[in-house]
Amino acid sequence: MKMAHLITNCSFQTFSSSPNYCRNIGQLQNSKSSNLSLKSCSRRQKKSYVTCASAAVQGQTQTPLTGSQQAYEHSSSKPKKVMVIGGDGYCGWATALHLSNKGYEVVIVDNLVRRAFDNQLGLDSLTPITSIQNRVRRWKSLTAKTIQLFIGDICDFEFLSETFKSFEPDAAVHFGEQRSAPYSMIDRSRAVYTQHNNVIGTLNVLFAIKEYSEECHLVKLGTMGEYGTPNIDIEEGFITITHNGRTDTLPYPKQASSFYHLSKVHDSHNIAFTCKAWGIRATDLNQGVVYGVRTDETAMHEELSNRFDYDGVFGTALNRFCVQAAVGHPLTVYGKGGQTRGYLDIRDTVQCVELAIANPAKPGEFRVFNQFTEQFSVNELAKLVTAAGAKLGLEVETKSIPNPRVEAEEHYYNAKHTKLIELGLVPHLLSDSLLDSLLNFAIQYKDRVDTAQIMPSVSWKKMGAKPRTVSV
Amino acid sequence: MKMAHLITNCSFQTFSSSPNYCRNIGQLQNSKSSNLSLKSCSRRQKKSYVTCASAAVQGQTQTPLTGSQQAYEHSSSKPKKVMVIGGDGYCGWATALHLSNKGYEVVIVDNLVRRAFDNQLGLDSLTPITSIQNRVRRWKSLTAKTIQLFIGDICDFEFLSETFKSFEPDAAVHFGEQRSAPYSMIDRSRAVYTQHNNVIGTLNVLFAIKEYSEECHLVKLGTMGEYGTPNIDIEEGFITITHNGRTDTLPYPKQASSFYHLSKVHDSHNIAFTCKAWGIRATDLNQGVVYGVRTDETAMHEELSNRFDYDGVFGTALNRFCVQAAVGHPLTVYGKGGQTRGYLDIRDTVQCVELAIANPAKPGEFRVFNQFTEQFSVNELAKLVTAAGAKLGLEVETKSIPNPRVEAEEHYYNAKHTKLIELGLVPHLLSDSLLDSLLNFAIQYKDRVDTAQIMPSVSWKKMGAKPRTVSV
Repeated sequence: MKMAHLITNCSFQTFSSSPNYCRNIGQLQNSKSSNLSLKSCSRRQKKSYVTCASAAVQGQTQTPLTGSQQAYEHSSSKPKKVMVIGGDGYCGWATALHLSNKGYEVVIVDNLVRRAFDNQLGLDSLTPITSIQNRVRRWKSLTAKTIQLFIGDICDFEFLSETFKSFEPDAAVHFGEQRSAPYSMIDRSRAVYTQHNNVIGTLNVLFAIKEYSEECHLVKLGTMGEYGTPNIDIEEGFITITHNGRTDTLPYPKQASSFYHLSKVHDSHNIAFTCKAWGIRATDLNQGVVYGVRTDETAMHEELSNRFDYDGVFGTALNRFCVQAAVGHPLTVYGKGGQTRGYLDIRDTVQCVELAIANPAKPGEFRVFNQFTEQFSVNELAKLVTAAGAKLGLEVETKSIPNPRVEAEEHYYNAKHTKLIELGLVPHLLSDSLLDSLLNFAIQYKDRVDTAQIMPSVSWKKMGAKPRTVSV
Repeated sequence: MKMAHLITNCSFQTFSSSPNYCRNIGQLQNSKSSNLSLKSCSRRQKKSYVTCASAAVQGQTQTPLTGSQQAYEHSSSKPKKVMVIGGDGYCGWATALHLSNKGYEVVIVDNLVRRAFDNQLGLDSLTPITSIQNRVRRWKSLTAKTIQLFIGDICDFEFLSETFKSFEPDAAVHFGEQRSAPYSMIDRSRAVYTQHNNVIGTLNVLFAIKEYSEECHLVKLGTMGEYGTPNIDIEEGFITITHNGRTDTLPYPKQASSFYHLSKVHDSHNIAFTCKAWGIRATDLNQGVVYGVRTDETAMHEELSNRFDYDGVFGTALNRFCVQAAVGHPLTVYGKGGQTRGYLDIRDTVQCVELAIANPAKPGEFRVFNQFTEQFSVNELAKLVTAAGAKLGLEVETKSIPNPRVEAEEHYYNAKHTKLIELGLVPHLLSDSLLDSLLNFAIQYKDRVDTAQIMPSVSWKKMGAKPRTVSV
């Protein structure tokens, strides 16, 4: 069975044409969700690009303050208003809820393209997830906290401008990128889409900050994959080099290994330049591989549940292994399995982002944090999952399959990650999370697993120029 | 007086819609140039994207061989067919003629956007230049050598594919990028255009090579500006770093200082990845600031004359100084004038590209050459032009004006540039070229100088998100 894909040559336009917004407004207005208030935030009369959906509860305009919010309220210099770009995605949704829970005023900006990718490729989250509109309504009904919703594409600068002018964020957390390495390696159109979407979207965010919210702190999600696997220690963003008797501190050399990872390298260079040229304040969070699905907030109600990807395109290694263990599928180690990376629990993702926001970069500062808590090789992960599975009575096998990627399978890896610890990060360790936040979740939903999605379907070497359908 | 600019939100589409090709074909077919043969090279019946214009001289199908061509003919392993992408531009045109003269079979691929930029901004080359069609016809009539012409946009992969399938190049020299730092800093739409055009165009070239001409050697024009001005010696592409007792050779850290320069950094990372992942063979020529206008070939006839830019957007420093000297305008030094860069004569540009082609990178090799011959500070250039002007009886003043860029004005600079010398480059030195290839040219055409174009009109710090008209 084949699925045609929707994104072709001019794929970057798919989600940015203004008629779509109008259509969205119309659809929402005709929907049965009568407690959803919709307003046009556009300041221009000729077009209304921005859809603001929030769950307006009659008579309740003042949200009760939490303890942490009260603490922020005491200091007028603390950031209060946070725009979460890509707030409907895996990391973005968990972060939006966490920040809202901590007393920040949160708006989500998202074009919902992550859901469209699933439709294109015939994939689905292991956990059932509801619409973003239902999500924010449920959050409001449970906590009385409002998360505003701006549905649109940040590659459309007119749309993005309206969100900045209307919300005036103190911080913009930017998760709004195509975030799968295999997706970017499906075919030429996906490679081009990924680099266009990520690079131009981020450029637009930088211009929006410069034009409308000069003091806004950009918190940008990068990836540890930007560094590749050099044979020397990986530092946090910069390295001091002594060469021919002279010394300078320079950006750490990058060796990314997919068009997705490369797009993040491009972003980092663009952001660093605007910090220097315009005085933008930015934090680049080079994140490791995220695992787990449960955070304090997403656990509050099934309609707040986060997505959990285990497929060969969007599934991260550890999530995939846990699903494989749950359904009795061998753990699929790519090649020799010596590939070592940094990993973190999604509960630490939200903690790290909050720490970055609460301790903003200075104007003109380009700050880089390596955002992970522990290093593992793929073989080590497989062993940990096997052992955890045994505790639950699961018999877990591991098999090596040909590596679809181009990467070193045995290499030195030692990446620094002290800056977030210094700011107060208290890590969740995998040994404590594996059973409870991962394996038990996978078991709970194992009837929803589509085993046809587990194996890698994208090859780094074989990718072609022609639009490709992906087997499902 | 203001000029509206043509490129707006979706500017990258401006030059890629298929109806334009059809229109070009129509225009050409209706033109009075009766010796221009036009054919559709498309292998698909439903669309004909590729316009091949060549000056067909009746009865002359075999071009006489030059000495150097005969030398290549002896060795079947020597590259013979070269695609010059951006062959209508300043460096591209000189290179196309030089390679044709040296016996290579040359095709020019160009969307002619450089001419459109002049129209948008009300600029013009100091030297009169004729149409690309006239240029290749004149070349044919003088030398009996054919340069094929493919008019279209490499961001349009369908077009680019047809050029590769029809020509099957041994080498692709890629000049086809927006190449002005100030242009990229005019406004958001130009920044986005520059990064989209350059990054996606180059991605498309890489995919075309992978799909249609796996052995084709990519010779890509980068810029010395990718390195910025680090406080240590600049190496050619890579640097060996010893850190915490371990050693690795890594990509040289990049610190670009405009959206244009950044686009070249992005290109370099993308190309390096495809060399590793797909076995592409590539040479990245990090070129310094090019000066001069005359090459052996362009000097053969006024219709072969190259463009010569002296304006604040496209003019390179030394060309601008010579024009200023010729018309009695003070030389405009930006800020303190200690900015030091690598420079080269355009006669060395064409020599370097030929050397790279004749000595191709190995499959999978990503090779970086620093392509310049001498280093000068802006103040040193001003002194040289002042002294040369005095020999011609010109009284040349220099004045410092506020620096429109964000850059160090006093800094260490020592960049290596030995690899092209090792391949056989024999440099033209500025001291020998200044009078004959530069100042005398500027004097010859001084009546064409528009002094309103000389001063910088683009500010790095003041650039805004809104579309900007540029004063002329």
